[in-house]
Amino acid sequence: MRVGFVGLGAMGMHMARNLHRGGLLAAVWNRTGEKARALASELSVQAPPTLADLASSVDAVVTCVSADADILEVVQQLAPNLRSGALVLDSSTVGAETARKSAELLKPRGVEFLDCPVSGGTEGARDATLAIMVGGNEEAFERAKPILAAMGKAVTHFGPTGSGQAAKATNQIMCAGIIEAVSEAMAFARAQGLPLEKLIDTLGKGAGSSWYFVHRAPNMVRGTFPAGFRVRLHEKDLTICRDMAARFGVTLPVVERMLGEYAELVARGYGDEDISSTFRLKAELFDHTHETNYDSK
Amino acid sequence: MRVGFVGLGAMGMHMARNLHRGGLLAAVWNRTGEKARALASELSVQAPPTLADLASSVDAVVTCVSADADILEVVQQLAPNLRSGALVLDSSTVGAETARKSAELLKPRGVEFLDCPVSGGTEGARDATLAIMVGGNEEAFERAKPILAAMGKAVTHFGPTGSGQAAKATNQIMCAGIIEAVSEAMAFARAQGLPLEKLIDTLGKGAGSSWYFVHRAPNMVRGTFPAGFRVRLHEKDLTICRDMAARFGVTLPVVERMLGEYAELVARGYGDEDISSTFRLKAELFDHTHETNYDSK
Repeated sequence: MRVGFVGLGAMGMHMARNLHRGGLLAAVWNRTGEKARALASELSVQAPPTLADLASSVDAVVTCVSADADILEVVQQLAPNLRSGALVLDSSTVGAETARKSAELLKPRGVEFLDCPVSGGTEGARDATLAIMVGGNEEAFERAKPILAAMGKAVTHFGPTGSGQAAKATNQIMCAGIIEAVSEAMAFARAQGLPLEKLIDTLGKGAGSSWYFVHRAPNMVRGTFPAGFRVRLHEKDLTICRDMAARFGVTLPVVERMLGEYAELVARGYGDEDISSTFRLKAELFDHTHETNYDSK
Repeated sequence: MRVGFVGLGAMGMHMARNLHRGGLLAAVWNRTGEKARALASELSVQAPPTLADLASSVDAVVTCVSADADILEVVQQLAPNLRSGALVLDSSTVGAETARKSAELLKPRGVEFLDCPVSGGTEGARDATLAIMVGGNEEAFERAKPILAAMGKAVTHFGPTGSGQAAKATNQIMCAGIIEAVSEAMAFARAQGLPLEKLIDTLGKGAGSSWYFVHRAPNMVRGTFPAGFRVRLHEKDLTICRDMAARFGVTLPVVERMLGEYAELVARGYGDEDISSTFRLKAELFDHTHETNYDSK
C-alpha cells in the first residue's frame, strides 16, 4: 500500500516518519512546501507540488491538519484524483460533523473516509505509541489497520464516521474538568501550608487520583508548566466540544468554564504552556486575600 | 496502651473492631448507648456510661463522629478526665479550624490531639486499609502509630494540627471536580451514541483517566449508583472545604458548583446514592433537546 501524508506539523512529521519506517510512505505534502521537499529528499519519497498530484499517486492519504476548515479544503482537493477504493484517514482533531462532511465529499468517488484523531502528544507521535480513536466503515477500518498500526499502539474502532472524533471530544472534556479540579485542589493545599510533594505522593494513590494529578501537580509545585498539552490546543479542542454539544442545544458547564480560563491564560501570554498552567489562576484566588486563620498562638 | 473508641457508626464500628484485633481496645462509647453495650459485650471490653468515665479509664481515645460541633462537644467532655500524656485521635472529617480548637481545649490538660481523617470508605475501615491523613505534634504522631496502624494502611503525617484535615479537604475538592468531569463527559458520550464500555476501556488507559472514571463511569452506563461515597457525605465534606476557603476570603468554583449539584440530588431523594449519581443531572442536559445532527442520509 502506497500512503501519502498531508500536514507535516509537530505531530505529522513524526507520524510520516513512522509510516516510512513501516515501509508505507510514498509521498508527502505540506502547506509550506519547503518542509515537504526536505523530508521527501531525506526519506527518498515524493513531494508532489499539489494535493491533486499526491492523490493520483497513492492508495491512501493520512491527513494531520489544524482546523475543521483545513481538512474540508484538503479533502475537496484530494477527492477528484483519488482512485476508487482509496482511503483517507484524518488524524486531526475536528468536529464529528466535519468528519461526516468529509465522508460525504469522498463517497461519490468510491473513497472511504476514517476519522482517526489521536492522543499521546508529540512523544506518542514520535514513539508510535499514539492512542488512535477511529470512526467509519468497518471494512475500511480493517484495510487501514497496517497504516494505523505504524503510527500508534492502542487503535480502537468506535463506530460510524464521526465516532472517533466523539471519543476524542469525550476525553478532552474529562481532561478539562480534571485539570481544573487538580489546579483548584493544589491552590487550596498550598494556601493551607501543606507539604505538597508528600501530598501528591499520598493522594496520588487514592480515589481522588488521576493521571493529571500524578503527572502535572508537580508542575504546580515547581511553578513551571512546560508543554505537555498546550493551553491553546486544548482550547481549540474544547471549542469543538462546545460546538458538538450545541448541536443538542446543550451548554456544558465544565467546557464553558475552562474555555473562560484558557482565554484568560492566552490573553496573558500563557497559551503555549501546558494546561496545568491553570494553576496560575487558581493560585491567584488565594493571593492578596485576608487570611484570617492560622492563629499565631 | 488502652484505647477508648467514641462513635460507632458505619466507619467507627469497623475501626473499633480492628483496634480490638490489634489488642488495643479497652472501652467504647456511642451516643446511642445500646450499640456500645452490644459491641462491648461481644468483645469483652468496657462500655462506660459517660465520656468522662471512658476518659478516665484509657491512655488514648479515637473519635469518629459526624460534624464539627460533635467533635468539639466530645472533646470538652473528655478533657477533664484524661490523664496528662494521653492522646486524642479524631478520625472524623471536620474543618482544620475545629481540629485546632480541639487541640487548644486539650493542651491545658497535657493531652495531645491528632486530626486523623481517613479515606477508603466502609470497605477500607473493615479491612483496615484506610488511608489516614494526620496533623499534629510529631512526637504524639510517633506514639499514636500503633493505633493508626491497627486501623489503616497508608498513614501519613502532614504537619501541625489541622493539616490532616487540610489534606483530606484537598482530596475532596479533587473528587468533586473529577466526578463532575466524568459525569459531563459520559453524558456527552452517550448523546453521541458511542459504545460506552469500549470507551471506558480505551480512555481509562489514557491521560484523561482517573480512579473515578475507571471505577464509577460503569455506574453511569448501568444507570445505577450504589454507595460508594454517598452524595450527602461528600456534600458535608465540601461544606467544610467551602468554610476553609472562606477563611481566605476565597470562593472555590469547583466546590460551589458541586454543592449546587448535590443539593439538587439530595432534594430529589438521591442523597444516599454514590456521587456518580451526578450523571443523572448531566444526562438530563441532553434529554428533550433539539438534536440537530446525525443526518438521516
